[in-house]
Amino acid sequence: MISELSILDCFQHLVDKKSDKLIVGSGDDAAVIKSQDKDLVHSVDISKINTHFPKDTRPEDIAYRSIAVALSDLAAMGAYPSFISIGLTSNSSDLGWYKKFTSGVEKILNEYQMHLVGGDITKGEVSVCVNVFGYAYEKNILRSTAEIGDLIFITGALGEGRQGLSDWKNKEKSEYIQKFFNPKISFCKSEYISKYATSCIDISDGLIKDLGSICKKSGVGAEIIFEEIPITNDIDDLYYGDDYKLCYTCSPRQIDNKLISKDYLIGKITSQKELLVRKENLIFDFKKNGWDSFA
Amino acid sequence: MISELSILDCFQHLVDKKSDKLIVGSGDDAAVIKSQDKDLVHSVDISKINTHFPKDTRPEDIAYRSIAVALSDLAAMGAYPSFISIGLTSNSSDLGWYKKFTSGVEKILNEYQMHLVGGDITKGEVSVCVNVFGYAYEKNILRSTAEIGDLIFITGALGEGRQGLSDWKNKEKSEYIQKFFNPKISFCKSEYISKYATSCIDISDGLIKDLGSICKKSGVGAEIIFEEIPITNDIDDLYYGDDYKLCYTCSPRQIDNKLISKDYLIGKITSQKELLVRKENLIFDFKKNGWDSFA
Repeated sequence: MISELSILDCFQHLVDKKSDKLIVGSGDDAAVIKSQDKDLVHSVDISKINTHFPKDTRPEDIAYRSIAVALSDLAAMGAYPSFISIGLTSNSSDLGWYKKFTSGVEKILNEYQMHLVGGDITKGEVSVCVNVFGYAYEKNILRSTAEIGDLIFITGALGEGRQGLSDWKNKEKSEYIQKFFNPKISFCKSEYISKYATSCIDISDGLIKDLGSICKKSGVGAEIIFEEIPITNDIDDLYYGDDYKLCYTCSPRQIDNKLISKDYLIGKITSQKELLVRKENLIFDFKKNGWDSFA
Repeated sequence: MISELSILDCFQHLVDKKSDKLIVGSGDDAAVIKSQDKDLVHSVDISKINTHFPKDTRPEDIAYRSIAVALSDLAAMGAYPSFISIGLTSNSSDLGWYKKFTSGVEKILNEYQMHLVGGDITKGEVSVCVNVFGYAYEKNILRSTAEIGDLIFITGALGEGRQGLSDWKNKEKSEYIQKFFNPKISFCKSEYISKYATSCIDISDGLIKDLGSICKKSGVGAEIIFEEIPITNDIDDLYYGDDYKLCYTCSPRQIDNKLISKDYLIGKITSQKELLVRKENLIFDFKKNGWDSFA
């Protein structure tokens, strides 16, 4: 019979890892994280079966993707990751499932040099609540500080995750499938964005909704040029989400900045308090909004 | 139609509260928590419908109980709470449900002077992943540091939550019902325990399992006297759980300590690496173990 203890044992080698950042690791009532002379950046993200990933997703990919998606919020704050904790719900009674899940956790922990400091586990439909913790590279970049006249950049193409999920469902081989199940978070970009940007958000719910959030929080508007946006499929890539690229604004004075000029300049911040998409030099009527798990 | 935004609006007044501990509250990609010259104590706890609370539990009680249960782990570490974040899964399409849930969150935030710093919400069977954060009163008290010859204390009666749930199911009026739905966490006890105890754990999975964990982690055994244990119902109170009292060990030199002498002395730590329950001066054969959500 599978027991909570036998499942927790699958994670033991991960939480046993020594770190000078950790005073007490997992296995006690709580973890104790060493005090640092830096403000702590923290975010929570739930990934649920059938909502955030399909039913037949491999357990190692469930782990990897759930954690990557949560990390994306740190990158969007101009912060690097330091540790995570996981609240896992699963109804699998196969210990192999948990071992595979753990291998996905280990893979991403190693990739981003993070520590797993604890978590909880309970029985039910698969759902992963990931808590991420980090510290700012230079300073935290908020959604609420875009300024009129700022340029708008995105750090990569939209729609790759969407394409990957579609290819996977159609059992096609494609380079995009990994982009859905194992999205890479561009912390190297987050580092220079934390120096130069005036505002930033990660494109998880779709560019329209996420840039819309910058506009709303900053009390400004935006105009973006469809032809300048690197897309994978069609105009729906602008609202689909699952991109985990960054959208940021910065002063026009940064236009020749070597790091920023490698990103995609897609528009500018305006004073009109609305988000306009210009396509073939006409204003495109964009009725759809982005991702909403309750809609 | 209910939307993620309309639900998040229910929480807005809670996360908008100003605090000198918070640099960025909720509403951005992540929260930013002010650096403190103290190690951070962190724990995660999932409470799921039908597993950790019954189906018809009021939303305000789901919130209160889920958070209280998570806080209990901080108390067991000799730490006081400072802030929390919540990963909420719910399939309710009634905005009133979320308002009631929020009122339960607000109640317990006020009771323990904590701040809600963020969270996530998704659609599904009701489940609350609560992340708690705090700092040690004096020092953290681990499970692994009990010593042979130490005395074993518990801070309150066992089985009250069990009785409360039973009374509620039988539609009886009783003082115990609140003990199940709104358990109080004794941080005032945690404060002196953090000074005097050699080890500590919260009794959430049942005394037998939880004291067993102290023994296992400390490489010691324990002998407890059934007649000295304050119970509410019968001997099953020793393994049922849902108590959220503390079980701690301390040196016999503390026997006359005014604070500790108010708690219940139930036994002593032995060298025998097993947990024995003595009843009517005989060794009671305790086959049952404590709570396991997978068993």
